[in-house]
Amino acid sequence: DPEVRTLLKIPEQYSSLGILTSRTGAAAQAFSVDEAAKACNVELLIFELPRDTEGYSGHGNLIVLGAYDVSDARRAVEVALTLIDEKAERIYINEVGHMEMHVTANAGPVLHQIFDAPLGKAFGFICAGPAGIAIVAADTAVKSSPVDIVWYGTPSINLSHTNEVIIGVSGDYGAVKKAVDTAYEKASALIEVFGQKPASILHFTQNPDL
Amino acid sequence: DPEVRTLLKIPEQYSSLGILTSRTGAAAQAFSVDEAAKACNVELLIFELPRDTEGYSGHGNLIVLGAYDVSDARRAVEVALTLIDEKAERIYINEVGHMEMHVTANAGPVLHQIFDAPLGKAFGFICAGPAGIAIVAADTAVKSSPVDIVWYGTPSINLSHTNEVIIGVSGDYGAVKKAVDTAYEKASALIEVFGQKPASILHFTQNPDL
Amino acid sequence: DPEVRTLLKIPEQYSSLGILTSRTGAAAQAFSVDEAAKACNVELLIFELPRDTEGYSGHGNLIVLGAYDVSDARRAVEVALTLIDEKAERIYINEVGHMEMHVTANAGPVLHQIFDAPLGKAFGFICAGPAGIAIVAADTAVKSSPVDIVWYGTPSINLSHTNEVIIGVSGDYGAVKKAVDTAYEKASALIEVFGQKPASILHFTQNPDL
Repeated sequence: DPEVRTLLKIPEQYSSLGILTSRTGAAAQAFSVDEAAKACNVELLIFELPRDTEGYSGHGNLIVLGAYDVSDARRAVEVALTLIDEKAERIYINEVGHMEMHVTANAGPVLHQIFDAPLGKAFGFICAGPAGIAIVAADTAVKSSPVDIVWYGTPSINLSHTNEVIIGVSGDYGAVKKAVDTAYEKASALIEVFGQKPASILHFTQNPDL
Repeated sequence: DPEVRTLLKIPEQYSSLGILTSRTGAAAQAFSVDEAAKACNVELLIFELPRDTEGYSGHGNLIVLGAYDVSDARRAVEVALTLIDEKAERIYINEVGHMEMHVTANAGPVLHQIFDAPLGKAFGFICAGPAGIAIVAADTAVKSSPVDIVWYGTPSINLSHTNEVIIGVSGDYGAVKKAVDTAYEKASALIEVFGQKPASILHFTQNPDL
Repeated sequence: DPEVRTLLKIPEQYSSLGILTSRTGAAAQAFSVDEAAKACNVELLIFELPRDTEGYSGHGNLIVLGAYDVSDARRAVEVALTLIDEKAERIYINEVGHMEMHVTANAGPVLHQIFDAPLGKAFGFICAGPAGIAIVAADTAVKSSPVDIVWYGTPSINLSHTNEVIIGVSGDYGAVKKAVDTAYEKASALIEVFGQKPASILHFTQNPDL
């Protein structure tokens, strides 16, 4: 509808929209949509992060893609959904903490638009909460490997009052991967202080003995 | 107390306040207070929407009404509370999604102040979450019926980082009602993808088989 | 790491950081860190309040302290953690409401920085949610005792869309204590309308009969 189009500031050239929305996660969706945008003829129009993650204090997401025809929009959403299922493996939780870690060898237009990732270079996403944990993990990560921090968010800066700190890092693929792996190990060890070892949100079950 | 009065910017002419506050809902309260303001001699002074809804990612509310005498304030709160119980029927949830839909034949000063509803005209409120669902429902609704969108909110615009999109629509009563009913059917069908059929928050019980 | 330091705007003179972060509470941490800053040679660098409190609609916290050497940072964190355990007694919850009340005889640099508490004077913190309850409690408190309101927050002003209102009060110790005690009694009575009597978050168990 033209009125809804005006409201959402969707340029006229896009006749079709792909919409993705969920309660949990931000980066799994961003990385997946980035692959979809590289594979299909779509452009990111809206990327908003409500404070959600159901009981956790992270983000949900609202993503709108514009396409010149409906088959591009449909295919982009299909590609993204398949990848989200896979990338959601890398959202980890325990009783109170959460973290999310992703690496791509080749950042596309969506990661560039959202996180200032240099186009075509490796990009890593490091996120953990409660927020203080991510500062320690990020510091450990960038000390361990020659990467540049190209984006960051704290509860009051660039984020939606979520209880987390995020950094986006760029560099050679090996360096980015090492930084993200180091951050994972550090954040995991710190979050474990609050409960059991963080497990993927896809498989997490509360240990009844804790 | 004069200090609290100054803090909350409550004009001197109001000797009494009516305060409504809860963890769940925004529009059920707004529509109810609007009826109270039409029936009693009170004015809306504060309407703030914390991000709450207990486990859901919608709003709670803080509403302060000003009155010239205590009996007006008390009566306005009584009227509003009775109506809230009734209007809360139209807040629907399931395991992860939520929606809220309301119609009035005759928008009063409170709906005008909060949502730019034209005074004395029919006004409809369409809200659903996760946010992307509401875009589809709103689009379907305004295509189905000749209404004008007079207000909208997305997680980052006009809302408090909640995971929802809201539109307020104005027009003839029949058209507004049709738009809201259409949005209800569309959003309900989409939210059902995430679980059982959304039921009123007053009656929802989790299906143990899901 | 220098890059993380620049990002977080941490002045060069601080060689060590103390980081405190949790999902629940803001003032218990602020009052505890204030004592730590009075006892140790540290300065408050970051104080951010995500909207968290797990299922409740209050704050979590991210606190970063700067120190000239690592032993100061470590000792400040130790002092703060011991006090937080004690002060968390004064975070009260029931099924849906929460409140937090604190008094210090002698506000230090951290409370001054965060809440504009006059240095060296008694300072009281009054917080309750849902938000409307705190307005009534605050009004009752300042009517009962000669204190000045030096800071306040509502869901949309100074807070992170949490469902609470907060006031900070200053004055003679006896007056501040009386105001906070009065607010506690009033807020506790109002929150009890929504369920069982609010109990310390450290001891709360849901009454199975409710």
